[in-house]
Amino acid sequence: MNPDIVRERQNATFDVEKLTNILDGGPEKTKRRREIETLVLHDPDFKEEDPNFLSRSERYDQAVRKSAQMILKLREYGIADPDEIYCYKSSVHPDRPEPLDLHLGMFLPTLLNQATPEQMDHFFMPSWNLEIIGTYAQTEIGHGTHLRGLETTATYDPATQEFVLNSPTVSSIKWWPGGLGKTSNHAIVLAQLHTLGNCHGLHAFIVPIRDMSTHEPLPGIVVGDIGPKFGFSEVDNGFLKLENVRLPRENMLMKYAKVEPDGTYVKPPSEKLTYGTMVFIRSMIVGQSAQALSKSCTIAIRYSAVRHQSELRPGEPEPQILDYQTQQYKLFPLLATAYAFIFVGQYMRKTYHRITGDINQGDFSELPELHALSAGLKAFTTWAANSGIEVCRMSCGGHGYSRSSALPDIYVNFTPACTYEGENTVMMLQTARYLVKSYQRAKNGQQLSGSVSYLNEAEHQRLQPQPVAARPTVVDINDLASLVEGYKLRAATLVQIAAKSIQQELQHRKNQEDAWNNSAIDLVRASDAHCHYVVVKLFTDKLGEIGDTAIHSVLSTLALLYALHGITQNSGDFLQAGLLSVPQMMLISARIKELLSQLRPNAVALVDAFDIRDKKLNSVLGRYDGNVYEHLFEWARRSPLNSTEVHESFHKYLKPLRAKL
Amino acid sequence: MNPDIVRERQNATFDVEKLTNILDGGPEKTKRRREIETLVLHDPDFKEEDPNFLSRSERYDQAVRKSAQMILKLREYGIADPDEIYCYKSSVHPDRPEPLDLHLGMFLPTLLNQATPEQMDHFFMPSWNLEIIGTYAQTEIGHGTHLRGLETTATYDPATQEFVLNSPTVSSIKWWPGGLGKTSNHAIVLAQLHTLGNCHGLHAFIVPIRDMSTHEPLPGIVVGDIGPKFGFSEVDNGFLKLENVRLPRENMLMKYAKVEPDGTYVKPPSEKLTYGTMVFIRSMIVGQSAQALSKSCTIAIRYSAVRHQSELRPGEPEPQILDYQTQQYKLFPLLATAYAFIFVGQYMRKTYHRITGDINQGDFSELPELHALSAGLKAFTTWAANSGIEVCRMSCGGHGYSRSSALPDIYVNFTPACTYEGENTVMMLQTARYLVKSYQRAKNGQQLSGSVSYLNEAEHQRLQPQPVAARPTVVDINDLASLVEGYKLRAATLVQIAAKSIQQELQHRKNQEDAWNNSAIDLVRASDAHCHYVVVKLFTDKLGEIGDTAIHSVLSTLALLYALHGITQNSGDFLQAGLLSVPQMMLISARIKELLSQLRPNAVALVDAFDIRDKKLNSVLGRYDGNVYEHLFEWARRSPLNSTEVHESFHKYLKPLRAKL
Repeated sequence: MNPDIVRERQNATFDVEKLTNILDGGPEKTKRRREIETLVLHDPDFKEEDPNFLSRSERYDQAVRKSAQMILKLREYGIADPDEIYCYKSSVHPDRPEPLDLHLGMFLPTLLNQATPEQMDHFFMPSWNLEIIGTYAQTEIGHGTHLRGLETTATYDPATQEFVLNSPTVSSIKWWPGGLGKTSNHAIVLAQLHTLGNCHGLHAFIVPIRDMSTHEPLPGIVVGDIGPKFGFSEVDNGFLKLENVRLPRENMLMKYAKVEPDGTYVKPPSEKLTYGTMVFIRSMIVGQSAQALSKSCTIAIRYSAVRHQSELRPGEPEPQILDYQTQQYKLFPLLATAYAFIFVGQYMRKTYHRITGDINQGDFSELPELHALSAGLKAFTTWAANSGIEVCRMSCGGHGYSRSSALPDIYVNFTPACTYEGENTVMMLQTARYLVKSYQRAKNGQQLSGSVSYLNEAEHQRLQPQPVAARPTVVDINDLASLVEGYKLRAATLVQIAAKSIQQELQHRKNQEDAWNNSAIDLVRASDAHCHYVVVKLFTDKLGEIGDTAIHSVLSTLALLYALHGITQNSGDFLQAGLLSVPQMMLISARIKELLSQLRPNAVALVDAFDIRDKKLNSVLGRYDGNVYEHLFEWARRSPLNSTEVHESFHKYLKPLRAKL
Repeated sequence: MNPDIVRERQNATFDVEKLTNILDGGPEKTKRRREIETLVLHDPDFKEEDPNFLSRSERYDQAVRKSAQMILKLREYGIADPDEIYCYKSSVHPDRPEPLDLHLGMFLPTLLNQATPEQMDHFFMPSWNLEIIGTYAQTEIGHGTHLRGLETTATYDPATQEFVLNSPTVSSIKWWPGGLGKTSNHAIVLAQLHTLGNCHGLHAFIVPIRDMSTHEPLPGIVVGDIGPKFGFSEVDNGFLKLENVRLPRENMLMKYAKVEPDGTYVKPPSEKLTYGTMVFIRSMIVGQSAQALSKSCTIAIRYSAVRHQSELRPGEPEPQILDYQTQQYKLFPLLATAYAFIFVGQYMRKTYHRITGDINQGDFSELPELHALSAGLKAFTTWAANSGIEVCRMSCGGHGYSRSSALPDIYVNFTPACTYEGENTVMMLQTARYLVKSYQRAKNGQQLSGSVSYLNEAEHQRLQPQPVAARPTVVDINDLASLVEGYKLRAATLVQIAAKSIQQELQHRKNQEDAWNNSAIDLVRASDAHCHYVVVKLFTDKLGEIGDTAIHSVLSTLALLYALHGITQNSGDFLQAGLLSVPQMMLISARIKELLSQLRPNAVALVDAFDIRDKKLNSVLGRYDGNVYEHLFEWARRSPLNSTEVHESFHKYLKPLRAKL
């Protein structure tokens, strides 16, 4: 064990295990998580070659091998609880997406939700037993989030009682679905349904794409891998071109909408039913943001405790780089953010389950708010994690660029979360739509509830964006509750500014849509401020649940740092709204420096509490024992370019070159 | 040609070719650049496999082949001007570093600068003719920018008149030098010189590391590749462990410092001589930031002109995504930044050459300022480009993640610039040291010149960071000259705040070093503000040189957008310093929206003016003709995973799995 990191742990002021229990949701949960992780990490069937040393095809091959093993073992051990499956999978493929993700996460659930009983009889067991391996094909090469723009067609032919599927243009080729390129033999294809001369919009069809026994593509199917990407090397994201592919009528998922044998179309009873999955996935992504940031902070902070560099005082040994104020200023706000997002993720999961219960009782009242909140928080947390991972990586100096640090892979496998499941700017605008609607409702005297209830107060207080200089400042910078108020009033101000911008545009004879587009910058800012408020509030609320004094103290410091750092990053908003004064801004800068010093002795313990094992972290820089350099050297020596002393290019090009010069 | 992009070009208000000439530095320069590019791009010897489809070893192999060809052809064509060599090389290896970079860029120049005439006779011609291929080995696994911390030793043995070189610890293994792993047979090694019982600090030694004929490592040499990285796949960054390697005395570079045969050490006459190279390389990096951002903007803006998505107005066709305000708000400020950095790069090159002239006349007076400026601007521009590339990538939605977009590669090959040649935070602190010193000189009544002369005025005007609310605001938001003043006063304020923080720390009995470290956050902010001021000023100055009215107009709009956008991103600073009022901030937000609309018709023309050819851009999304989807599909089909219809993993794992379930 590296003596620096031993000393760090000795200096911690709180019990790490107790904090881990809080993060897991109780000591029992910690215990069970560790059991499952141990099951995988000690299982020789999951031993792997370092993916950094493999070709793309070898990485895919290794991932398929492990996924096949995973399916077998999950059934062998009888692990069936979704959280436990997720935990097992995260240990088998540590933060790497894998080829069966869409089969397990989209194909099977879509069958369960949208297949008729007859279709279940026909398709479910073969899919459960991986005879059928499926994916979910929605996006097209020219079309993303805007579903009405999708071009794939399914035209019903009453003569044969078949659907004829086509990709009429290059831009309509299905593009991106995971597992589509090589792994799947079926796809649920979203296509515009045409019957009896009318188009009824998007519907889902089960399309066989490869022969069940030879795995060769079926006639009329052009399928393949979309080529190398930034990350996701284990996954065969694919393309699919359909050329007059005929499907029996029974292959349209008909639990809700139907096409009768004669071609008559029967509408689904409600449109809201598909909302739920989206909300669930976006809520999960909040947790993934927290996870990616926790990993990155673990690596950067442990490495900063063992790395020595330059000199603070002449003649003294090189200090740990964690002692530099600039290094603390890079990493500790991100550490606070990781904690904040973990608690937000816990809240979102809890809320999702509560509201799902309500929905099952027929009560949809809270769904719009949850939908708006999950969209905005998905964007807010993924953007923050995305830039935060890179700050962590660059804080490791040169070694952060080595793939052995794991940081490049954390980044490339996480960054797609900013785009998939709802592009972030689009998400922010969805939340903004809800905020502006709520603002208008409040203005019309309606009483709002939930996270937007502050818009009532705002209306009540008749907040004016300007002039504000005269308004007394309202925030006590050392009181978290008061800071939450400050964030709330900032959000209220920015929602109001956005709403007024729309109003002004309308007054200049713009139509509703142009007015919206010409206010989009303000709308995104408003959503961002709303989400920021929610995060600060949820972090603060969480402190109320913490009994242990030492842990309460260190988490309070983190929460205060999170709140104050956020203010300095957006100081213009707080000054413009008159919520803080110029002298207070100076005090906040000074206070942040104090908080960094206060957190310094607990930094390593705070990342230890995330309890991410070395095998899962897979980072030479983030090792628990801090023995970085020996293992970096050992890793490099195993690199494929070192399998021979002399690379063939010497004989091919460099030696002959001499003769020519 | 895609009709959307044709229409964009028709709508431009200025002559693209004339703007290209301005960026190149004159029509003759444009012509010559294109000639050199054509030479490479039409040369069948430089045809390459798409690196995205190759393994690391194949990528290295291909790069060595092309580099060897490049050396031959440069001599064949007699291209000898450094700028022309750079242009040729940038076409051969478009924005990809290559295995001979350090031989050409560090090994040969170091010989030229530091070898004695006898050493030149012995080493130069073999190196020029690539019998000797060298690299420059400074950083160690445990040591980066802090040169005194390096551990490699060179101990003189008068008995044999040899130096004995050693890597005494794991942390002293040389790490990172490009071309060290596989390509080089020599290295210039920086080591602590010990002679007659005394250590005289770092000196440079020419160390043979591989046999000149077999290329096998020599006795006592452990050498190899450091393993896969984030980017730089073409380069064999290497490690080097020295075990009692004996070198003749003549292998120490002795133009300045010397060791006599009896072991007597002779000091070099001046320390300042090594400054120049660093300043030059950092100035070059400013230009590379501009280049990386120009490429990224070209890709993102062209793609945004041909991509259609969602709907602005119900019933109308999907609009070009470049019509969304949020998309303009992401891309146009970055476009403005790219232009700003091109002009800053031009200025830095010019200034470097001017000051080099002065230095050759023995006048070192401007060197400290240039050193400070190049350090800060290196950090300022690389950070901005680094985050800007990712904004461009993410603005392309899903396809930005495909390697065919080129954006992932632009990012991974650019981001190391934030760390190499001086880690950015360290760079900012170096600039800050110069600023604080200058501030103190001004306070003591000295008259400052150059980019920091505003600190005289600041002292004169007795700027107070607070209270400022009462001070009248000074900035006219529609006047660039006035905005430059505003940036200047912001910088002055932040330098003053940093200087006062140090003073306060000293008053609390902190020693000088702790006071510095406890003010580091403020110091970095001050440097950042100083660099921002310099960039806004240089952009504004450049406008004075532009005669063409149409181009002057569009560049002025870009400059105004750059300045105003920078204010909104740092609005707290301007409000705190009392430079702008709250109502002005609201006006700026509105003004920015107007500028975005004004730039919209010229956006494609403004990236066309960068004149980056398709073969060099190598991006399916950024193609000049806008025919994106066909080529994306064609590219994907060539991907190695599609070389067979059925991947072997199906037979190995998926088919057998069925039997077990």
